[in-house]
Amino acid sequence: MTSTVITGVGELVTNDEFLDGADHSEQLGRLSDAAIVVQDGLIAWVGPAGKAPDADDRRDVGGRAVIPGFVDSHSHLVFAGDRSAEFAARMTGVSYDGGGIANSVAATRAASDDDLRALVGARVAEMRAQGTTTVEIKSGYGLCVEDEVRALRIAAEFTSETTFLGAHVVPPEYADRRGEYVALVTGEMLTACAPHARWIDVFCEPNSAHAFTEEEARAVLSAGRDAGLGLRLHGNQLGHGPGVRLAVEMGAASVDHCTFLSEADVEQLAAASDTTVATLLPGVEFSTRSPYPDARRLLDAGVSIALATDCNPGTCYSSSMPFVLALAVREMGLTPAEALRAATGGSAKSLQRNDIGVLRPGNRADLTVLDAPSYLHLSYRAGVPLARALDLGRVDES
Amino acid sequence: MTSTVITGVGELVTNDEFLDGADHSEQLGRLSDAAIVVQDGLIAWVGPAGKAPDADDRRDVGGRAVIPGFVDSHSHLVFAGDRSAEFAARMTGVSYDGGGIANSVAATRAASDDDLRALVGARVAEMRAQGTTTVEIKSGYGLCVEDEVRALRIAAEFTSETTFLGAHVVPPEYADRRGEYVALVTGEMLTACAPHARWIDVFCEPNSAHAFTEEEARAVLSAGRDAGLGLRLHGNQLGHGPGVRLAVEMGAASVDHCTFLSEADVEQLAAASDTTVATLLPGVEFSTRSPYPDARRLLDAGVSIALATDCNPGTCYSSSMPFVLALAVREMGLTPAEALRAATGGSAKSLQRNDIGVLRPGNRADLTVLDAPSYLHLSYRAGVPLARALDLGRVDES
Repeated sequence: MTSTVITGVGELVTNDEFLDGADHSEQLGRLSDAAIVVQDGLIAWVGPAGKAPDADDRRDVGGRAVIPGFVDSHSHLVFAGDRSAEFAARMTGVSYDGGGIANSVAATRAASDDDLRALVGARVAEMRAQGTTTVEIKSGYGLCVEDEVRALRIAAEFTSETTFLGAHVVPPEYADRRGEYVALVTGEMLTACAPHARWIDVFCEPNSAHAFTEEEARAVLSAGRDAGLGLRLHGNQLGHGPGVRLAVEMGAASVDHCTFLSEADVEQLAAASDTTVATLLPGVEFSTRSPYPDARRLLDAGVSIALATDCNPGTCYSSSMPFVLALAVREMGLTPAEALRAATGGSAKSLQRNDIGVLRPGNRADLTVLDAPSYLHLSYRAGVPLARALDLGRVDES
Repeated sequence: MTSTVITGVGELVTNDEFLDGADHSEQLGRLSDAAIVVQDGLIAWVGPAGKAPDADDRRDVGGRAVIPGFVDSHSHLVFAGDRSAEFAARMTGVSYDGGGIANSVAATRAASDDDLRALVGARVAEMRAQGTTTVEIKSGYGLCVEDEVRALRIAAEFTSETTFLGAHVVPPEYADRRGEYVALVTGEMLTACAPHARWIDVFCEPNSAHAFTEEEARAVLSAGRDAGLGLRLHGNQLGHGPGVRLAVEMGAASVDHCTFLSEADVEQLAAASDTTVATLLPGVEFSTRSPYPDARRLLDAGVSIALATDCNPGTCYSSSMPFVLALAVREMGLTPAEALRAATGGSAKSLQRNDIGVLRPGNRADLTVLDAPSYLHLSYRAGVPLARALDLGRVDES
């Protein structure tokens, strides 16, 4: 029950729109020269340094900026194998259609539990070292009952935000009998996986022979909802399609990618902004040399947006939320403040979480420290590893 | 005189075209399962792990890849002040013309020696933590005799590659008497600075009122050459211009930016490829939302290219060579191997250095370790801090 007061916070971004005395000009609930009191992993107090209450311990961050920990609401961390050669080939002109996923499936099935656990653990640690305090992890490189369950069991050792993605692609052995695979995903596989998952997801993409059609995706999400899972959907990544419409229709918490959107898609997302978040994954466009989604258009239309990495071995093996944020500013027309909000509060909303993404009393004390005086440096200093999750067990910040 | 054998090198990139038994397919002189013997800071031996000679100490890097340390051949690290707000404004549409440099000049002149020294030291350490083992540092935020000398004295505490850039911009107090400023730079300022500099540089850019014309730039470089300095030139950054032609004509070691090039420019660079390197700085295009230079066109024409950060407070406050390398692959059409060569051997050539950029016996043991099995991951895993300079005084790699 010890409490710690964190002092020397040169700039504190809270995302709290109700914080007294804060600068609300960028909707960041920003304080200069602030302090935070943490007790039992939760925030007990936030305010100006001069008014900080006493606490058992004191920790000074030396004038650095502190922000809400990044919420990486879309990742595929449970995989084995190395697809760097596929990346290199793509950079010389080979296009992406989802087919390479089969390579990861083969390597993942062949890996031992311990090997997979070590790989996921290293990736989560790498994310934390870059400022991410919550990560959603999907299955989807097992694609059979046993290996999908295994992926979710291992993911659950690292996060409560586990997502069943048996409908990642149609595995090669089912290429000529897609209906059987959908029946498996919505039947036996779902039954086995649901106890280990919070969410269900599907790759709905008419522009890929490996992905799922609108009808197949609807069947997957309906079955998941019946099994008590929340809904997410990969949609509109490779071209225009039914993904966004379906996600909104079914009340999904998030529709992810949103690279190719019609006016109707944007209008539907805006109308559903309380329910459905558009999760943008610009690391994918960077790593596949594709056009970026138009985040500016979405924000201007009133759509709720989130940013995440999509960390995965095929289309974006980056675990860096600061990199994603810098891309969002450079390539998608967001201001540094809008990008930060999308990567914290926005992605928390896409996970329907109120206890993260905003630093206010009662919420989790998920704090990320920047080796910089202001959040602006996250995009100003692209590529530089400035952010790290604050570990109150360590004394290495001064 | 102790020697250390570095073992467990999963992949070794040497850039040595003559290394026996190496994979030369990408001109990287690559070995799998290699070892390196280091003595007195120099490489004593390179080869397969099974043939490594004995040494006093042994250091295992756990299967990681090792590459030649990055050579960042263009940076402006001697400055004070914060221009992140200027960056944020530019991201909402304000264009760059070099005018903001005056803000850094004012803050730099106002800083104490100790403050400047601490700032430069922190930036050099940040670079080293990202795998850079040689950095060139320019003056250019003093723009008066005393402050230019001071910048070079401080830079020389951290690198032998110091560059006198009194001709960075015409300072505001000389706006109406440019000739006087050029006379100062080529006279009293040069005399005072030359003992502390290896190179002289000039920002030749007819598209900026703050920069120098062809005639002014020729006068600056001629005077520098007479004072015994090597020549570098900022050219063709904001639009077409005489920079490349002038650099080639004068036998400059490097012409930097090269964003806007005519066919004649490319032909001249190709003809001068033994002498003059085109140094590309894509972090600038990222941070100013400008079109990227066409590196593919340059390589295909036979031009010698280098990659560097241009780390500076105005147009690119990134110190990350891995970020630059990822941009070169994504945005400029280089293969991962070409980008790595440009960021090591290419930039070493632009500094006319044979003792770095290639790992062979007798050269400096400037080694960078990657938290990855292959150099391919530098571009495959964009944004992730995988690279760090190997410090043989520490044991933290396993």
